[in-house]
Order: sequence, then structure tokens, then C-alpha cells
Amino acid sequence: MREASQLRVDIRRLRADIEELGWIGRDPSGGLSRPSFSPADRQARAWLQNKIEQAGLAFRRDGAGNIFGRLGQGSPVVLAGSHLDTVLNGGLFDGAAGVLAALECLRRIREAGLLLVRPIEVVSFTDEEGSLVGDFLGSRAFAGRLNRPEVERGITSLGVPLKDVLAGTGITVDSLLKTHEERPAVAAYLELHIEQGSVLESRHAPVGIVERIAGKRYRWCSYLGRADHATTPVDRRRDAFLAAADFALEGNRRIAGLSGRGLMTVGRVDVRPGSFSVVPGRVDFSLDLRSDSADVLNAMDDELMALAGHVSDSRGLAFSSRLVDATEPVALSERVIAVLDEEAVGLGLSPVRLTSGPGHDAQIISAVAEAGLIFIPCADGVSHAPEEMIDWGDLEKGADLLLRALIRLAT
Amino acid sequence: MREASQLRVDIRRLRADIEELGWIGRDPSGGLSRPSFSPADRQARAWLQNKIEQAGLAFRRDGAGNIFGRLGQGSPVVLAGSHLDTVLNGGLFDGAAGVLAALECLRRIREAGLLLVRPIEVVSFTDEEGSLVGDFLGSRAFAGRLNRPEVERGITSLGVPLKDVLAGTGITVDSLLKTHEERPAVAAYLELHIEQGSVLESRHAPVGIVERIAGKRYRWCSYLGRADHATTPVDRRRDAFLAAADFALEGNRRIAGLSGRGLMTVGRVDVRPGSFSVVPGRVDFSLDLRSDSADVLNAMDDELMALAGHVSDSRGLAFSSRLVDATEPVALSERVIAVLDEEAVGLGLSPVRLTSGPGHDAQIISAVAEAGLIFIPCADGVSHAPEEMIDWGDLEKGADLLLRALIRLAT
Repeated sequence: MREASQLRVDIRRLRADIEELGWIGRDPSGGLSRPSFSPADRQARAWLQNKIEQAGLAFRRDGAGNIFGRLGQGSPVVLAGSHLDTVLNGGLFDGAAGVLAALECLRRIREAGLLLVRPIEVVSFTDEEGSLVGDFLGSRAFAGRLNRPEVERGITSLGVPLKDVLAGTGITVDSLLKTHEERPAVAAYLELHIEQGSVLESRHAPVGIVERIAGKRYRWCSYLGRADHATTPVDRRRDAFLAAADFALEGNRRIAGLSGRGLMTVGRVDVRPGSFSVVPGRVDFSLDLRSDSADVLNAMDDELMALAGHVSDSRGLAFSSRLVDATEPVALSERVIAVLDEEAVGLGLSPVRLTSGPGHDAQIISAVAEAGLIFIPCADGVSHAPEEMIDWGDLEKGADLLLRALIRLAT
Repeated sequence: MREASQLRVDIRRLRADIEELGWIGRDPSGGLSRPSFSPADRQARAWLQNKIEQAGLAFRRDGAGNIFGRLGQGSPVVLAGSHLDTVLNGGLFDGAAGVLAALECLRRIREAGLLLVRPIEVVSFTDEEGSLVGDFLGSRAFAGRLNRPEVERGITSLGVPLKDVLAGTGITVDSLLKTHEERPAVAAYLELHIEQGSVLESRHAPVGIVERIAGKRYRWCSYLGRADHATTPVDRRRDAFLAAADFALEGNRRIAGLSGRGLMTVGRVDVRPGSFSVVPGRVDFSLDLRSDSADVLNAMDDELMALAGHVSDSRGLAFSSRLVDATEPVALSERVIAVLDEEAVGLGLSPVRLTSGPGHDAQIISAVAEAGLIFIPCADGVSHAPEEMIDWGDLEKGADLLLRALIRLAT
């Protein structure tokens, strides 16, 4: 195995792949928009298939449209990858870095002619970003975590039934629901991803090993007041925007007081009727809660729903809310973490152990396989934006760690 | 004049007109949408022309599309009216009550064969609600208060140049700008309107006489922060929505402390990028300031702009704002107020003197003629909404007052 331990990725080839892919779905403003099954996403899928075939890997697509490229034969398989879809006006690295780093690892292993005990597959999961009906559609299908009503009655963010979006893709509601039945036995899953935070950057660490992934609660909330002309005296108004403002500000104060382990975000706000001279009669808004502790998530949710009711009572409005998505926090595989730790030390790295705020496919796959997650820093912690940037040297180190861990797990 | 003093409107005929007009531009939800030059507004214009001609009045339209129906000849003219356009999803009475009450008055005077010293005209002004390029387009054209760049370069709220909206209406930028040149000499202008507030209702007064009309400042404001993933720690966020929330809440507190004579409304709020898992990087919002005192208006504006800057500084964002519309407060004609007061007493009414929060065409016409404004109560103070409702008995009293004042001013 002396040869294998000397193996390194070709960062120039990996960088060229990331930059080439970065032209697919490019917005005029420089961001990338590849929501799932958009023309740009379809183009990216065709591009990846071509890359997989050029690399001499066996191309395969499952019932959820997850794309695989296999090296070697047998079972169980060692999986590595992430996703190629992006949010609207996102960046070059979120998802793509993980898929293309895994592809580069497989290319290097094949070029070196290493003998594998287990096959290794690069994977690109469908719709990690949840453009259709909730995050992680592809990895949830793979893990058997979809339910029939969710996909049969699912309406995408564009107001179109999921079925219609799938038309012409070769994927159907049935094939989505049966994806997990054809799943091969999975020995382990490894994912490389940008941190989407600043822990690594602030500690000048090129690589991090994730121990836990935070869970989340998504709520869609509404304050219903009354639309009045802007000349209505203050004491007669029931201003839904002020209620939402009050809730968001006081909610942030309470969450800060409750625990250092939770975050809330009000990211989408629809104010109606939405004209200069009319007091807002209704505000619908999103509430995104995150924590690596299920207890903290539940405590935040309870506290905020109590606050929301208090605000509506004191302002004479009605409040309603429904839970639209939830992901539980997970702990990643201790065995895989130990492997990553040892291989990082072998590479002369001092990896930082950390928690992931954002969810990842690794979180879903951890329900059916031992999963590990490698982070590399991203500039200023920014992601989901055109400004997403990395240090290519960090990516090289992270991809080398991925390569060594894959070889270790597959031989 | 004994006969004239016995003359009363026919409230059943007036009510039938209002209800008939209420079918033009009716939304599925029951509200009325007749923004200027929409198909519904054009239909309402044709309907009014027909009513004017049926009533035996001389129909006329000026260069701004203001519609007139004249009884009698000579100069100067006594004008009475309001507007037929509505906000989106507005109500039955805002504007229409004033035009149709004036029409009913002219019908009664004509039927009674009263001899007029001065002609009386019913008028319906174009685009009082400002669907195109700011409020009061028609009355401002009539008063000569438009300027060339405003109408030449004007872009409507739908993003279409004003010129394009006017295509096919017979109205042009030139005809708008020349409207005031053909204006007849105006002895007085009277307008009946729903209060859009609750002063009359709370005092159980069927009729009010307006002394002053509040002015306003419209600002379009922006907080520019940074869009970050919802897992970004609080101390690294620059959340534009929380800044706007902070401004709106603290602004309302300060305005309440500053004076009882000012109001602020944040009615339109655009939060971007507007997704669950992204901290808002930018919020654009409207600021509507009202007062019957120019000093208070200016003090509010100064105070709020200072506050907005303070909020952006303390939260690490950028703030910008531009004044997009302004109307100065006006005092209505003391002579016309005295006439209205005397005629109200003659009708056995105890009219309440009050200030109008909302602007009205009377405010614009007061620059070129002695103007008076009669208010009738509206249920719960609600206007610009499908729930707009009146007591028909109040409208009868208000229209009788309008009738008597018109006769007095024209004979």
C-alpha cells in the first residue's frame, strides 16, 4: 500500500472541472442557477454523464435521477459525492466541489490501477437544495425516506405539481418511491462540501471533519390583521407588518438568550396588499430554526410559537403557522470519523472537528450507511451566493483526504 | 328660492347608480378594481358618459380625460365631483359617491327647472388613485400642476411608460400638459367623499365639513445587508429584514412621541432573495408620512431619516432612500366652508368640522379655485377595501347638503 498512500488528486484537473461546470446555468450577474430539472440542471446532468464516461467509470442513474459512476465490482459499495443542483443565483462550489472531488478521486485510483476490495461510486444526488418538494429529494429516495402523498401531491415552489416537472425526465412518482429498492448495499458514504460558515476560516484550518449535522424546523407563518388606509389613526390599526417585525426582533432576542446552539431566520416575507398607502393587512413569512440538538430545536419552536401568539394577542391580530419541513439533527459515523482523522494526520493536516449548520445529503444517507463529511473553508463563510469562493489549496487538501479515506474504506 | 330650498336628492336613484357602477371592474372576491385606463375604467367612463347624456347634461372631456357634464351656460362654472377610478380591490364608494351625488344634484336641479346664474358641472377626474404616475393626475392637469418630464418619462406601477398606457385613449402627453389652458373659470369646487376614517362614525355625525387636508411624503427606502445561509452565526449576519423591522417599530414609537398630528405607514415591503434558508440581504420598503401640518411632516421626515441611518450604522448595513411623491397640506376655502355650514344648519344637521387624512382632488383644485369638501361616514373607517360601506341615509344627507350648496353658489 506504499503506492496508494502516495496518491494525490490533480487539483488543476479538478479546478478545470469546477470552472467548466460553472458556465452551466450562469446568471447575467455571475451567480449560478441550476434548480433541479431546469434546462441548466439537465445540461449539468448530461455534462456529468459525459465526464463519468470519459473517466472510464460505469454510468448509472437510479429512479430518483441520482447519477452514479462506478469503479470496480462487487458489494457493498463505497459511495462518495454530493449534488450538482444549486439555489437560484448560488455559487460555484456548494455541491459541485463534492461531486467533482469524488470524480477526481476515482480517476486517480483508476489511473494508478489500484486493486479495490469494494467498488467505489461517485454520486450526484437529485435536488439537494429542495427546489421541488423539500430538501434532499434524491438522497431521501435513495434512503427510502419519501412517502407517497409527499411526491404524488407535491407542489413545487413554482406552483407546479411535481409530476409535471418530472415529465420527460424518465423519472416518475413510482420510480422515486421505488428508488431505495434497487439500492446497492453501501459500506460507507463520504461527502466533501464547503463549510458554509466561518469556523475553519477563523481557525486557519484547511480541512474540517464534521461530527454532527444540525437539524431544522421550517414553519410558514401568517399574521392576519386588517388593511386600512394610511390615514387610519394608530390606535385603530391592526398592522400585520409591525406584528411580524415585533416577532422577528423579539424572537431573535429570546433565541440568543435561550442557547448558543440555536439559530432563527425569517427569510421570506410577503406583505399584503403591499401598497404605499395601505396598512398591511396580512403578512406571511417563513421561519427557519436550526440546532444540532433536538431538545434545543424543540425548545426554540415552543418559545417562538408562544411569542408569536403573545404578539398577536397584544396587537389584536390572528396568528397561524404550520410546520412545512423538519430534519432531525444527526451524529455521523464514529468509525468513519476515526478513519478521516487518521488519514488527515497521515497527510500532515490538523483537522478541526465541527458541527454542520446546514443539512447535507450525508445526513440522510447516515440513516442507511456509515457516513462521513469533510468540510473545506469558504471565503467569509458565504454560500448560496455568487460570491461563494474557496482557496484551491484547501480543496486540494480536502480532496486528498477524501481520496485516502476512500482507498482505506475500499481496500 | 323657497322651491329651491325644498329640493332634495332622490337617494334611491343615487343608490341605484352606485350599485350599477359597482358591477364594473368587480373582482371575484367582491372588491372593485378600476385602475385608470384599465378595461374596467374605460367601461366606467363610457357608462358615465351615457348617464350624463341621459340626464340631459352637456358631455365634455378635456385633455386629461377628465369627464364633465354641464347644466347651464356662461362663466365662471361651479364644479362638483370626484373620481371613478379605484385602487386594486377597492370599494364601492371611494370617489364614485362624489361623482354620482353631484350627477344626482344636477339631475334634480334640471328637473326642478331652477334658473342658474352660473353653470354647474359634474366632473370625474382621471386617476385620482395614482395608478399611473402619482396621485391626482387629472386634477393636477386641470390645475396646471404637471411638469413635462413627469409625464414624458413617467413609468407606471406596472413598469410601462405612461405614453404607452395612454395609447388609444385620445389623451397624449401634450394634451395632458395643455389641459389647464382650456380650463374654464371656476367659481368654486365641491366634493363629497367618504371619510376614510372614523371621526364622524365615533361622533354619530352623518356629515362632516373638511377644514384642512393633510399632506404627505412618500419615500422608497432600502436596507442593503448581505444574503447569508441560515446557518450563519448571528454576530456575522447583516440581516436587512431585521433592520427594516427595527426601523418600522422604533419609527412608530418616535412618531407617536413626536406629535399627535403625524402618521407613518410601511405598506410595501420587498424582502430579497426571499427564501426560507437565506438571511435577507436586501429589503426595499415604502414609507408613507401624513400630517395636516407641513412643519410636522418635515419634522417626522427628518426624525425618521436620522433613525434609519442610526439603524443601518448600528447593524452594519447601508441605507438609502428617495422622495418619490409629496403633497403639501392645504386649508380649504373659508367662504365655501361657511356656505356649507349655513346650508347644513338649514337642513337640520350639526356638521362636524374635521381634517382629512387622505388627499383628495379638492386639495389640488384648491390651488386654482375656492374648494370645499363634504365627508360622510364609512363603516368602521374602512376604505380602499371590498368592505367599504356607508349608511345610505348619511349619503342622502350629504348629497342634500351638496345640492343646497351648489344651488347657493350657482344662483
